[in-house]
Amino acid sequence: MTSYATNTRALGATDFAVPVDDRYFEDYVPGMTYEYGHLTVSEREIVEFSLRFDPQPIHTDPAFAATGPFSGLIASGWHSAGLLMRLFADHYLSRVASLASPGVDELRWAAPLRPGDAVRLRVTTTGTRPSRSKPDRGLVHSEALLLNQDDRCPISFKVTNILRRRDGG
Amino acid sequence: MTSYATNTRALGATDFAVPVDDRYFEDYVPGMTYEYGHLTVSEREIVEFSLRFDPQPIHTDPAFAATGPFSGLIASGWHSAGLLMRLFADHYLSRVASLASPGVDELRWAAPLRPGDAVRLRVTTTGTRPSRSKPDRGLVHSEALLLNQDDRCPISFKVTNILRRRDGG
Repeated sequence: MTSYATNTRALGATDFAVPVDDRYFEDYVPGMTYEYGHLTVSEREIVEFSLRFDPQPIHTDPAFAATGPFSGLIASGWHSAGLLMRLFADHYLSRVASLASPGVDELRWAAPLRPGDAVRLRVTTTGTRPSRSKPDRGLVHSEALLLNQDDRCPISFKVTNILRRRDGG
Repeated sequence: MTSYATNTRALGATDFAVPVDDRYFEDYVPGMTYEYGHLTVSEREIVEFSLRFDPQPIHTDPAFAATGPFSGLIASGWHSAGLLMRLFADHYLSRVASLASPGVDELRWAAPLRPGDAVRLRVTTTGTRPSRSKPDRGLVHSEALLLNQDDRCPISFKVTNILRRRDGG
């Protein structure tokens, strides 16, 4: 399976003070927004992913898709989710303190993702709180959006992550 | 990229009267529940997916994961989403009438997905209504769960799909 390039980077002037391999619950500050990118996706990658996970002809058959509602092949919405997650894992989510995620809310596919699109992640820390039951960890709430070169949004969602505290609680 | 076997099937006594390639908005009946399966996932597939989309060591490094909170390698939550979607696309979602999905709500990862697990889809049509703006289509609301061999739930969500009407509206 093709691996995506890992030469993505912080795009804005704002980034965390500490790298992902030394980042803990305390390093996530509500109200902060970051951008990371870019990833691109090819027609072959879109078809390959969809044949495995979402074999609808609008995702697997360029000729069929050309006559469809989007006038061309579009990626599975779950492929868009994977691209967002790759940027989220490479740049935002701690590599040493992340314990789990209970889930995602308000996932929206507002625009198609097409071959050749270059996407970036925009992620905002919307809230944090210590765990009520376990003093060694806390919850980080974030809003994550994938944006394409035209600032349209193939996917967005709200996510909660559970992270260890630096001080051990 | 490895393709999953396509020999999955309806598991319960209940299935649609019409196959996915002749299924329209009118064929989705609120309150009906269906089950389809099974799919399995190997350690190699879990690692391969995660290296591409979610390179956290708990998903990519069996030795590291053995010492982690789940005592072993677990699949990316987005891999679980892909497995659910494959069963949803192969058995539930119309191949001829599906136009788009605006999104998903209340996505929850309640249990880990581990190598060797055999999962099935349980999907309930929770509601349907004609489109207010376009008479040729309607909205189908569904609750979808992936269940493993122990009836634990690696992923669940609520999803809306837009489908063409058989009668053209």
